[in-house]
Amino acid sequence: MAYYLLCIKKIFIRRRSSSSDSERKMRIKVIMSTMASSESPDILEERRKAYQAMARPDTEIGVARVEKGSVSIENEYDRAIAVPHILQKVKEAEDEGYDAVFITCFGDPGIAAARELVNIPVIGTFQANAMMVSLVSEKFSIVTVLDDVIPALDNLIRIQSLKGRLASIRSVNIPVLELHEDPEDALNKLTDESIKAVKEDVAQSILLGCGGFTGMAEELQNRLKAKGLIIPVLDPGKTALKVTEAAADLKLYNSKSAYPSPRDKERRF
Amino acid sequence: MAYYLLCIKKIFIRRRSSSSDSERKMRIKVIMSTMASSESPDILEERRKAYQAMARPDTEIGVARVEKGSVSIENEYDRAIAVPHILQKVKEAEDEGYDAVFITCFGDPGIAAARELVNIPVIGTFQANAMMVSLVSEKFSIVTVLDDVIPALDNLIRIQSLKGRLASIRSVNIPVLELHEDPEDALNKLTDESIKAVKEDVAQSILLGCGGFTGMAEELQNRLKAKGLIIPVLDPGKTALKVTEAAADLKLYNSKSAYPSPRDKERRF
Amino acid sequence: MAYYLLCIKKIFIRRRSSSSDSERKMRIKVIMSTMASSESPDILEERRKAYQAMARPDTEIGVARVEKGSVSIENEYDRAIAVPHILQKVKEAEDEGYDAVFITCFGDPGIAAARELVNIPVIGTFQANAMMVSLVSEKFSIVTVLDDVIPALDNLIRIQSLKGRLASIRSVNIPVLELHEDPEDALNKLTDESIKAVKEDVAQSILLGCGGFTGMAEELQNRLKAKGLIIPVLDPGKTALKVTEAAADLKLYNSKSAYPSPRDKERRF
Amino acid sequence: MAYYLLCIKKIFIRRRSSSSDSERKMRIKVIMSTMASSESPDILEERRKAYQAMARPDTEIGVARVEKGSVSIENEYDRAIAVPHILQKVKEAEDEGYDAVFITCFGDPGIAAARELVNIPVIGTFQANAMMVSLVSEKFSIVTVLDDVIPALDNLIRIQSLKGRLASIRSVNIPVLELHEDPEDALNKLTDESIKAVKEDVAQSILLGCGGFTGMAEELQNRLKAKGLIIPVLDPGKTALKVTEAAADLKLYNSKSAYPSPRDKERRF
Amino acid sequence: MAYYLLCIKKIFIRRRSSSSDSERKMRIKVIMSTMASSESPDILEERRKAYQAMARPDTEIGVARVEKGSVSIENEYDRAIAVPHILQKVKEAEDEGYDAVFITCFGDPGIAAARELVNIPVIGTFQANAMMVSLVSEKFSIVTVLDDVIPALDNLIRIQSLKGRLASIRSVNIPVLELHEDPEDALNKLTDESIKAVKEDVAQSILLGCGGFTGMAEELQNRLKAKGLIIPVLDPGKTALKVTEAAADLKLYNSKSAYPSPRDKERRF
Amino acid sequence: MAYYLLCIKKIFIRRRSSSSDSERKMRIKVIMSTMASSESPDILEERRKAYQAMARPDTEIGVARVEKGSVSIENEYDRAIAVPHILQKVKEAEDEGYDAVFITCFGDPGIAAARELVNIPVIGTFQANAMMVSLVSEKFSIVTVLDDVIPALDNLIRIQSLKGRLASIRSVNIPVLELHEDPEDALNKLTDESIKAVKEDVAQSILLGCGGFTGMAEELQNRLKAKGLIIPVLDPGKTALKVTEAAADLKLYNSKSAYPSPRDKERRF
Repeated sequence: MAYYLLCIKKIFIRRRSSSSDSERKMRIKVIMSTMASSESPDILEERRKAYQAMARPDTEIGVARVEKGSVSIENEYDRAIAVPHILQKVKEAEDEGYDAVFITCFGDPGIAAARELVNIPVIGTFQANAMMVSLVSEKFSIVTVLDDVIPALDNLIRIQSLKGRLASIRSVNIPVLELHEDPEDALNKLTDESIKAVKEDVAQSILLGCGGFTGMAEELQNRLKAKGLIIPVLDPGKTALKVTEAAADLKLYNSKSAYPSPRDKERRF
Repeated sequence: MAYYLLCIKKIFIRRRSSSSDSERKMRIKVIMSTMASSESPDILEERRKAYQAMARPDTEIGVARVEKGSVSIENEYDRAIAVPHILQKVKEAEDEGYDAVFITCFGDPGIAAARELVNIPVIGTFQANAMMVSLVSEKFSIVTVLDDVIPALDNLIRIQSLKGRLASIRSVNIPVLELHEDPEDALNKLTDESIKAVKEDVAQSILLGCGGFTGMAEELQNRLKAKGLIIPVLDPGKTALKVTEAAADLKLYNSKSAYPSPRDKERRF
Repeated sequence: MAYYLLCIKKIFIRRRSSSSDSERKMRIKVIMSTMASSESPDILEERRKAYQAMARPDTEIGVARVEKGSVSIENEYDRAIAVPHILQKVKEAEDEGYDAVFITCFGDPGIAAARELVNIPVIGTFQANAMMVSLVSEKFSIVTVLDDVIPALDNLIRIQSLKGRLASIRSVNIPVLELHEDPEDALNKLTDESIKAVKEDVAQSILLGCGGFTGMAEELQNRLKAKGLIIPVLDPGKTALKVTEAAADLKLYNSKSAYPSPRDKERRF
Repeated sequence: MAYYLLCIKKIFIRRRSSSSDSERKMRIKVIMSTMASSESPDILEERRKAYQAMARPDTEIGVARVEKGSVSIENEYDRAIAVPHILQKVKEAEDEGYDAVFITCFGDPGIAAARELVNIPVIGTFQANAMMVSLVSEKFSIVTVLDDVIPALDNLIRIQSLKGRLASIRSVNIPVLELHEDPEDALNKLTDESIKAVKEDVAQSILLGCGGFTGMAEELQNRLKAKGLIIPVLDPGKTALKVTEAAADLKLYNSKSAYPSPRDKERRF
Repeated sequence: MAYYLLCIKKIFIRRRSSSSDSERKMRIKVIMSTMASSESPDILEERRKAYQAMARPDTEIGVARVEKGSVSIENEYDRAIAVPHILQKVKEAEDEGYDAVFITCFGDPGIAAARELVNIPVIGTFQANAMMVSLVSEKFSIVTVLDDVIPALDNLIRIQSLKGRLASIRSVNIPVLELHEDPEDALNKLTDESIKAVKEDVAQSILLGCGGFTGMAEELQNRLKAKGLIIPVLDPGKTALKVTEAAADLKLYNSKSAYPSPRDKERRF
Repeated sequence: MAYYLLCIKKIFIRRRSSSSDSERKMRIKVIMSTMASSESPDILEERRKAYQAMARPDTEIGVARVEKGSVSIENEYDRAIAVPHILQKVKEAEDEGYDAVFITCFGDPGIAAARELVNIPVIGTFQANAMMVSLVSEKFSIVTVLDDVIPALDNLIRIQSLKGRLASIRSVNIPVLELHEDPEDALNKLTDESIKAVKEDVAQSILLGCGGFTGMAEELQNRLKAKGLIIPVLDPGKTALKVTEAAADLKLYNSKSAYPSPRDKERRF
């Protein structure tokens, strides 16, 4: 269905009235950037509970999922077709009064465009993880699912000017949707590639370069420690949540010199 | 309308049989990345003729235009919503047997995703212009339409690792669609900003950072020369066409290590 | 008093038993990196309350201050003589069971050495601010107290590989200890320099490059907004606290490949 | 023979009258940068025909060769002694009315000085190849003849600010003049090094770093494809020709802010 | 013992009257940055003689050693606690009328702070070696004692903007104080790592990344030459001395825009 | 006159027998890179005396001058035609038993090629000055004679990977050969541009970007000091001499991995 959108408002509106700040919870919305597979049951509520369990006591979590796009994001093409649907979910979150959002995909799809569209902080999982790991190491390696993903991650590194922090990007060569078919195999391959990253590429920490690795960080960290490698391994989703909480708590808003609001004009979707 | 696309072919097909190479024309498709305004008449045929006039004698030009997206691309948001429609047009061009395509927008929307999707060369106007101007100068400045566009151009500079070539980005602060309301005014402002770029930012050449400036390069170049400044000014569209012809003539194809083909999976548009 | 320290333990000890995690508060220690002036009253408790007021409900704040060093840190020399005393306070914090520390000085004195010495996260105010502001802008300017401070901040930018994020460093040319003699004057100068940073240096956000500016960020942000500049301005101390809370919540620890534990050897202080 | 040159004209002359543009062919001169070996027969006419066969139907090719210098260019010394003779040939080409020149050596000898001396485009083989390959890949490796050549290529990478595009430089360790003694051996070694570049250095495309490899690109590309590597391999000479045609077609001229014309002064050759 | 230092003079004093320049020797002080081990005999006079033997005929050498700090500097922590004591020795050297100083540690501890404190040149061993080796090679590798030292050397590379000159950093994994227990073993490992640096990391020269390697450079250089590798290997101490002599001879002084003099304020040590 | 050179020896010969080292003077040859003007008297002996006066007591100076090339080097063209003649003079110096050479032109013409040709150190004036000034400042500006020279200096900055050290390049816009027509005017303009470099470009030190400024450094340094700017200004020639003395004293030789010896082949001059 095609329609015209003629009126994105450019007036800057303070998003939380300061009077009610102390009285109400911080509200954060998790935007899942892949559409549900036709075979998989609905997992929105399950994910909401998982994030709520990781959240601060004063945080209230909401979850939304794109209805179109791809069932997994593994290259620039998958990213490109998901972005318009992610943008819509981000806008809805702001309209619903959320204080900040984060996007679950490690490829940070659409964060610049989303920051143009809304005033609330829009956190990308990759950027949040790269930031936090730089507090406990100088150089990180990313271990991701597929070699296919590496060029898109390379692009992110350049966009975020993080070349000076990167040791290497490696992959376990398992597609996202097959990750949970044999989690033990995935974990073994993660361990192997992480050790190579430390020994051959001088990595000092590991980022798990796909949301699908959620829940594997602590075990991987322990396995490395058992081999004498005191190497931080970050959980992608939890790290993004904590950075989003910090951003919301600080009441940050998007620089309009960096992310200019879309002008009124004819558009069709 | 939602549907499932399950079968992007990953088999690599040589796109022109070598036997017929010498006998037929090189075919290039121009992809216009902005949708038509509801008020403007159709200009596809007019544009085709203009590009055909600039083309080599052995080149046949086709033109396609996105049906959705924005009427102008002035920030990351406009770019993001145009990209899926651009990708569709690129795919159609390959299916129709074109040898190469170029995308008219100076923001190079979707070129990485498009190179994943097809085997034929996909040329971005910005990248083509930055390349050619580096043959006749060491550092270029971009003069674009609006300050709003500058952050997106900065992103392009980082993605293409061109920081070492950039003198500055300046704007005339006229929206794309108003450029042709008073072309003399636009040209005067272009001249002023170009002179500032040369004198204050050490620019040695000028790129016109918007397809809307098409046709103004030669006059601007002459005005600079009249002031003693022997400074190349490139025409965005013509330059992109010439680079696309060269790429097609060389029968280049996209590296699948750089631009991996989309895997078969559920997608919905 | 001179003594020998022969036994820094290299054994890695998990710092919070997981059993008690949910039952007790997160404990964060603020390390003030300048010694008290001989004329100034004790402000430790006042500061503790201020940080406690900014903290999450589940955070307990402690504050410590170096007993030696300088009353203000305005160049590399001041930083160098403060560092050994800061290291001592960081070590004490770990021994007291704190989950993370942050150092109030914007020059991040001693953070690499401190991370070698302890396992808990050690957050520098500059690094934390540079991270958070990169979520809402692409390029920041720092406005600091004195021109004297600029070379040391330049060093930090290089150490943290943040050149690609920096628009400029400017100063109001008021020594730290005179900042609060005429706060209105300081704020006016901050506003002037921030506007110049935005207009002349293409800054998209402002970092206040000295702990002495604490409390001025919101007012400055509002003044910029009143001039139509939607430009985030971060409060140095509050931002560092929020990042430290996130790091502690994630139970991050220091990479020993990046920050090797000091070996046993003769040392004298 | 020594003489004085006192009068390089600094007046800028438009090189093709626009009236005759459509009526006559584009004229391109190929400058061979190595002198003929005393044992080899003249190959100028043979080369002219080869380039003419690769050229556009509307291009007329001329070929010139330096009379002095080295029989092959394999380090900075060989390059330095060839440059004055190359410059002379470039100047002659402009005087003869050519529209553009390109220099066959992959080391781009003398292109900056040549651009100072003439107004017509002067294309270096390396720069042209690095440009075109960036349209179909993000990172290229160069495979060259000898390890000796690598430092000079490293210099080129720095001069052209292309570090961000380079995966690696490798060599087959065969001197230029021995390349055609056993072409099958050369091709086998090229294939081996190219595969290592892709597998070990993350190359996404291959540049053949010596004019002596001319004619081997297509076969190498096919061999890689047979191993499942869809990796563009560019033919050095043909690529340089196509870029030169594009530059001539666009009527580019050299920026005199980048390449200032030599001033009148005493010189002796 | 704590005391207050209230009066660092900011007046700039020309340090050698020009009248007496030709009549007296150049005086250079070597600052040893590690304290003596409780078991080792005094070596100051021995070192003075060794440096005097390497010095120019018109140079007079003095040697000073820190009384506190560490017996060896192997990470950022060791460096941090040595710096205040090094600064004191540098100040004393200026007060005694020395014309320049150099600091023996390869980690360049405290050089920026020291340049703020005094007007005479303060040379770091690392910086001096990196400079001189760049006259005879494009890319150097550092071979140091321990992996622990590598992150601190990485920091130096960033601080000095020398990334473009570095091939790699390797270590022999022997602690400084054990280097002379089995010098033949140390030399064998140095040779092995240097050959790997040349063959695997494309090093063109070798810097010995620890003062403890003093005296091994020539032998290592000869061993490499015996294997056909014409690779310069610099002696850390002698190189630093020669650069210091050159700086003193040129009567260089420290830029106060780069290294602002410490302001008068309360400080306690 | 044309001839063939077939036998550049590749055997590496130790250039000073160690036995005689202590008994004889260090011998340094100054290579003047511009030919004498037809009107100017011979100045070789005058220059030799001037350099001898600046040299160490144990240094013996020789001077040679190219017989062909240009009377001044002001762009890449002048540099290119001078280089073969400079190379010849460098080779002669090695054959005559000199221990090191330096080349007087600030554009460092031919240093890489020269290092391939000989084993003794070949010092470029620019590289030597950039090195020494980095001991007393973090960022330097170059003030040169003409805007024409700036692109060539920019190339040097890239070749030497010194972008991180450069504040700016400015010119006084006086051709080299007119510098001494009105030295007071030259000095006034130097002062003005140096002050602008410090105030507007954040320069912390000044390099005089042309050999023609020799003798003006001290006066300029004093003028800046009189305005409260403690800014080192280096004398180009004296600085190059001191670095050359240090290199010779250290018996450095050229890395043959960086600067491979020219292979035997037909060459014609």
